[in-house]
Amino acid sequence: MTVMTVEQIEHFLDDVFPQHMGKIESVGDMRATMRLTIGHEHLRPGPRVSGPTMMGFADVALYVAILAQIGPEPMAVTSDLNCHFLRAASGEHDIIAHAKLIKLGRRLAVGEVLIVSAADETKPVIHVTASYVLPDKA
Amino acid sequence: MTVMTVEQIEHFLDDVFPQHMGKIESVGDMRATMRLTIGHEHLRPGPRVSGPTMMGFADVALYVAILAQIGPEPMAVTSDLNCHFLRAASGEHDIIAHAKLIKLGRRLAVGEVLIVSAADETKPVIHVTASYVLPDKA
Amino acid sequence: MTVMTVEQIEHFLDDVFPQHMGKIESVGDMRATMRLTIGHEHLRPGPRVSGPTMMGFADVALYVAILAQIGPEPMAVTSDLNCHFLRAASGEHDIIAHAKLIKLGRRLAVGEVLIVSAADETKPVIHVTASYVLPDKA
Amino acid sequence: MTVMTVEQIEHFLDDVFPQHMGKIESVGDMRATMRLTIGHEHLRPGPRVSGPTMMGFADVALYVAILAQIGPEPMAVTSDLNCHFLRAASGEHDIIAHAKLIKLGRRLAVGEVLIVSAADETKPVIHVTASYVLPDKA
Repeated sequence: MTVMTVEQIEHFLDDVFPQHMGKIESVGDMRATMRLTIGHEHLRPGPRVSGPTMMGFADVALYVAILAQIGPEPMAVTSDLNCHFLRAASGEHDIIAHAKLIKLGRRLAVGEVLIVSAADETKPVIHVTASYVLPDKA
Repeated sequence: MTVMTVEQIEHFLDDVFPQHMGKIESVGDMRATMRLTIGHEHLRPGPRVSGPTMMGFADVALYVAILAQIGPEPMAVTSDLNCHFLRAASGEHDIIAHAKLIKLGRRLAVGEVLIVSAADETKPVIHVTASYVLPDKA
Repeated sequence: MTVMTVEQIEHFLDDVFPQHMGKIESVGDMRATMRLTIGHEHLRPGPRVSGPTMMGFADVALYVAILAQIGPEPMAVTSDLNCHFLRAASGEHDIIAHAKLIKLGRRLAVGEVLIVSAADETKPVIHVTASYVLPDKA
Repeated sequence: MTVMTVEQIEHFLDDVFPQHMGKIESVGDMRATMRLTIGHEHLRPGPRVSGPTMMGFADVALYVAILAQIGPEPMAVTSDLNCHFLRAASGEHDIIAHAKLIKLGRRLAVGEVLIVSAADETKPVIHVTASYVLPDKA
């Protein structure tokens, strides 16, 4: 059901988006799981994981889920992103993003992401939904 | 895990919010399922189910999921509601809302709802997330 | 800057979407203002104006602002809609929607709407943002 | 109408949130304007300003607008944040955030932000709305 492996997606991402956060743990039918090791640049006072870190990480995880379905397309563009902050994420633990595509249409993809802290994977720290405009087929 | 039965919630809703849409099919731990029979007032041209109908129905389904957890509290107030429209829902079939609470805190609850058409329950027609301000405990 | 008059848009709406709520008060460059007289079908207990009424009314007001710019196109489709509920709107007064397009691109339009009660036009009751997928040009 | 000056807010922010992005240009009644000089850490390929940079910057600008109204309160917590990406922002120019509070209640504040590129201040690059849970008054 997927057209790229984890390794292929990692290579593609390193090429087109070298600053991206996180490592892919797995991809599957309409979904992806990624893990981010927290560095100083991801923190805000607490220390806890900053909001922009979590929003950007969620965005990458959905992009990975899209790539796994449609193949190496550098031009999927985020059109909207909505998030609910649920609890603080300790800066001393990795965070893990579970991304799921809700719809993959011809022109638009919609997905959701739940991010948890490795400190307690049962309590989500942020929930994100986002839409992507897909490239026109040549 | 729930503190009210389907019947208790239906009676409570009929009392505090008689105009509410839909019937409760089941409630469970942090979740509720409701079904709406489509009438003329729910349609837009097509005929398909109108956007306000689906948004309002999602809101009721999350309110029901909250009631099932916290008991008869008339004052949970929707503070934000976000939706992605995924596909048209035929006006000739019921719609079914699957609501799930993502967080139930002391002051805020956050949940998501996937609505499907009874014509094809595998293809969601709308995805909604929403937040609720909970009443202060006396 | 607009390509349709209020009268032309009203006729077009009556034709393609006869169930639409509200009357157009004015349209202008990237904006529209509409007024809704509240009837029994728009109420929830209080009585106050229901959430679905306000969300649906905001959606129509943005559609009108788009029509005023691009002409009679029946197929602009709402792709996402986000709202923050700010205060209760009394069911005894009209509500007024001020819609403004933030972006009108080739494929997507994005806009925002502030709805006020005629009882106090300085205190908004809901803020809405939404995106629309525009029809392909023939 | 404001209870803190730009200098007081800058000092307070440096104290409680030293990693924050941008400089305050002005604050006023229910609003704030900030400017961000783009560095390497804010870029994605293009080079253009990254999404997390813009989302984080919008969040800071709304927090500044809240501080200007309620005084030094370290505990306003972002509860939801929604954004529409409108166009790419060149990585070679500053970005400017115009933040406006739509509602400042006892428990919740809601605001919106329009970010423009200094390259063309008439074309917004992102529109953000967000909610904040305010600290309980002692």
